[in-house]
Amino acid sequence: MELFEAIYRRRDVRDFGPDEIPRETLGIILDAAHHAGSVGFMQPWNFTIIRSQETQSTIADLVAEENNKAAGNYIGIEREKYLSLHLEAIRSAPVNIAVTCDSSRGGPHVAGRNTMPETDVYSTCCAIQNLWLAARAEGVGMCWVSLLDPERVKEILEIPPEITLVGYLCLGIPEYFEDRPHLEQQGWKTRTPLEEVVFYESWNQKATEPIQTVRENS
Amino acid sequence: MELFEAIYRRRDVRDFGPDEIPRETLGIILDAAHHAGSVGFMQPWNFTIIRSQETQSTIADLVAEENNKAAGNYIGIEREKYLSLHLEAIRSAPVNIAVTCDSSRGGPHVAGRNTMPETDVYSTCCAIQNLWLAARAEGVGMCWVSLLDPERVKEILEIPPEITLVGYLCLGIPEYFEDRPHLEQQGWKTRTPLEEVVFYESWNQKATEPIQTVRENS
Repeated sequence: MELFEAIYRRRDVRDFGPDEIPRETLGIILDAAHHAGSVGFMQPWNFTIIRSQETQSTIADLVAEENNKAAGNYIGIEREKYLSLHLEAIRSAPVNIAVTCDSSRGGPHVAGRNTMPETDVYSTCCAIQNLWLAARAEGVGMCWVSLLDPERVKEILEIPPEITLVGYLCLGIPEYFEDRPHLEQQGWKTRTPLEEVVFYESWNQKATEPIQTVRENS
Repeated sequence: MELFEAIYRRRDVRDFGPDEIPRETLGIILDAAHHAGSVGFMQPWNFTIIRSQETQSTIADLVAEENNKAAGNYIGIEREKYLSLHLEAIRSAPVNIAVTCDSSRGGPHVAGRNTMPETDVYSTCCAIQNLWLAARAEGVGMCWVSLLDPERVKEILEIPPEITLVGYLCLGIPEYFEDRPHLEQQGWKTRTPLEEVVFYESWNQKATEPIQTVRENS
């Protein structure tokens, strides 16, 4: 798949069919993640693959708990919308991946990390984006479940306290990929025009005309 | 360009030729960034484009200062290696982009962000990875300069205190893209085998055999 096709057709997928992810496909996806850039070539990430139904189920219970708490922030139709967002896909995904960051990797002085130590976690997020795009290209759907208490998940997976849980991902083979982001399709939110998020030379200085995003001759 | 080609051939580029980045190319790259996933479709990012030589120069001075401090952590050959790493490419890049995250965007309750509020910054990193890959596909080199004091950069760009500076990027047209990461090419570090970073079911449980990353029939 072309890069731009993968970027524009990537979705947060929360409905999976019954098919397994072939072992070689998972390898390809993980290798793509591992080829993200990292501060000082630190490669601070680990990917813990969870296929065990029992572990997935324990983690899904945590998410359900947080989901109920979060739904309390909304009322009426908003609340119904919220609960219908399928915030939990853990049990139905054949593969879960806990993505973590080890801040001690590479020793005490990692090139380029002196003033912004958080760049190790940022590198790990870049790896997740590679993973997400590679999954899309391989026909694998993925969602990033963030409605969980990272410390409790770490305990379940025996991840040491000093390691950061960055993302908890669910992967599976979807029936289809939606044309637009699910939250947009459901009328929850729309995409902000590009012109609103791009500034020139300093904060909040916007373009006076539309930003060209396709070639004139294409 | 194919997705996997972009992933495997993306580099942290710090040497740029004299050519400008065409306006439409920059638009294409920014639009790719804007199409990253974000927690609760929050789209918390902004991209401040800096072409002003004066602003670039002021920021480059900050980086040079931090670079000298950081070099103090190394001695002898290590130090020479460190200083030769071209940690500063700000002045030679026609375009700098300050990527920021606005944690207040989307109001007080963003779907999926209750337990891990930091996921807004994580989404912004995903946008940066999209930007990096899109740049690569368009023949534009990019480096992520992290050796700077984010608060001082924010002052220069008049970015409000409550906004997070996530990444400071330099983009330009390189003479060539290196085959391997610069830090690997320079003998600074090597890529960790994939088998070392992938665990199964719980922390530190590694595979007993190599992970397949290409199709048998390819």
